[in-house]
Amino acid sequence: MISQTTEYALRAVVYLAQHAEESWTTKQIAAATRVPAGYLSKVLQGLSRSGLITSQRGRHGGFQLTGDPEQLTILEVVNAVEPIRRINHCPLNLGSHGDELCPLHKQLDKTIELVEQQFASTPVSALLGTEDTVEPLCEFPASANVGKGRKVDLTVSKNEG
Amino acid sequence: MISQTTEYALRAVVYLAQHAEESWTTKQIAAATRVPAGYLSKVLQGLSRSGLITSQRGRHGGFQLTGDPEQLTILEVVNAVEPIRRINHCPLNLGSHGDELCPLHKQLDKTIELVEQQFASTPVSALLGTEDTVEPLCEFPASANVGKGRKVDLTVSKNEG
Repeated sequence: MISQTTEYALRAVVYLAQHAEESWTTKQIAAATRVPAGYLSKVLQGLSRSGLITSQRGRHGGFQLTGDPEQLTILEVVNAVEPIRRINHCPLNLGSHGDELCPLHKQLDKTIELVEQQFASTPVSALLGTEDTVEPLCEFPASANVGKGRKVDLTVSKNEG
Repeated sequence: MISQTTEYALRAVVYLAQHAEESWTTKQIAAATRVPAGYLSKVLQGLSRSGLITSQRGRHGGFQLTGDPEQLTILEVVNAVEPIRRINHCPLNLGSHGDELCPLHKQLDKTIELVEQQFASTPVSALLGTEDTVEPLCEFPASANVGKGRKVDLTVSKNEG
């Protein structure tokens, strides 16, 4: 239903939104999101190509979220890595159907539309932890002590890759 | 979004619902649904194991839909071949989250729930052709001339496998 790539992209974006004040390396994001670094690297490339995250080279380089999590929707993240494909014409290429969908594919497209609408109406900011919820991606070296006025203590060196 | 297995299972069930009066072989259903026979065979096994379709051996053997398309939901078909998995606990196994989901996974589960609800509320009968729509899976040897009082003319021999 929700693909692994989509979930990993959302984890990475949520992590960067939670720690927007700095740049983070693939290795650090991989540790915090529990995503294999090689897989994550491809996901980050997709997000970067779409301009949702910015990569900076050099000693303090890494990835940062480009925009405001209030303005960025789940749909934009999903479409950056694995675009939602609506059913616009008969998947069986039945000539007699022309541009019209049969009830089977009309119904499936309706479901995809529903998901698309929900993703489009939900900003990334709605995925972040609040005082009333548990925090996404906590318990990790690079995030455990960041934010909320606590001291930053990185087990994974920040300027490593 | 909608996996290939799910789509293939729905095509097969729609085909059997449209031609409920007889049994159909894997080869015939494969031709009508444009699904590779090997792949379809596994899909049909799943549907059969769940009791949604019945297989009969012998000269006039093949598959038939077990129940009434009015009573059978898309969700039952989907769950027979690729069960929808709700997110019930933290996919990262974060101990501190316990049974509570963070906002990221709560939101993703909400999307899965939405799809589950839509599938549960849609009967297979809603996927069949009506006078106002194009007909699913038409243009095929095994279905082109079946129903609506027209002569049955099967290019693929019905009792073949």
